[in-house]
Amino acid sequence: MIDTVIAYMIKNKITVACAESCTAGQISARLGDVSGVSEIFSEGYVTYSNEAKEKNLGVSHDALENFGAVSEVVARQMAEGVCRVSGARLGLSATGIAGPTGGTEDKPVGLVYMGVCLDGVTTVVKKVFKGSRTEVRTQTVEAVFSEVKKRLQI
Amino acid sequence: MIDTVIAYMIKNKITVACAESCTAGQISARLGDVSGVSEIFSEGYVTYSNEAKEKNLGVSHDALENFGAVSEVVARQMAEGVCRVSGARLGLSATGIAGPTGGTEDKPVGLVYMGVCLDGVTTVVKKVFKGSRTEVRTQTVEAVFSEVKKRLQI
Repeated sequence: MIDTVIAYMIKNKITVACAESCTAGQISARLGDVSGVSEIFSEGYVTYSNEAKEKNLGVSHDALENFGAVSEVVARQMAEGVCRVSGARLGLSATGIAGPTGGTEDKPVGLVYMGVCLDGVTTVVKKVFKGSRTEVRTQTVEAVFSEVKKRLQI
Repeated sequence: MIDTVIAYMIKNKITVACAESCTAGQISARLGDVSGVSEIFSEGYVTYSNEAKEKNLGVSHDALENFGAVSEVVARQMAEGVCRVSGARLGLSATGIAGPTGGTEDKPVGLVYMGVCLDGVTTVVKKVFKGSRTEVRTQTVEAVFSEVKKRLQI
């Protein structure tokens, strides 16, 4: 599925940029798996800390304070922010709790918000994935591209 | 080996940041595999295009023009640049030709330069890896952490 989505993006010259927290580069790396992706993929940001989210993506301090890094609002601001700083048509974001530690009652391990900003319109998908840290992150990458597929109506 | 290196970095609070071209996020993602790495890992940059290398890492236009993106000079400037913009003690970079296309006589597929800047002192490792696009990138990640191991005298 992912290769098909990326091939479609390359064919249709849909420029893309990534803003990653819990996946820490895996979405960008998945794009980089495909030869020829440099035509549409110029840059990505791994913003693990709140400071990096503010500095590099323009996520608002208020949103981080009031909703936390793992929130619908921050996922949205990350996806929109990376479009703004990169000029890409498509911005992909992921912020979540990959575990095994860091979970709370409100925000359990496996909770991930994924943002897809396409031509200025953003959707955010919320999931609570089961499994190990690796499994949570892998499922996040799959789910991001699944949302891209939907948004691009492929 | 890589897990041991990252565990040592966490234990010794050695802050790290990544600047990636051909690996496109895989070095950052490898750091993110380890729970607790957020203590030392705040941000990473995927700079696939020359423009992103200049804008986000301060790589000089002259270096890109004169030596090309896949060069010892650019790997060095990427590693030093990411230390500068992030404030991390350790900056890791990779720039290369993962293939299967893009190779030339002077710069064959598999040619990769990897930079490790530690407390302002940079070493650059040059390799010509054999194998597929995936294999070239995987070997690059291994080689970067191998150089980190050497530099940290683990």
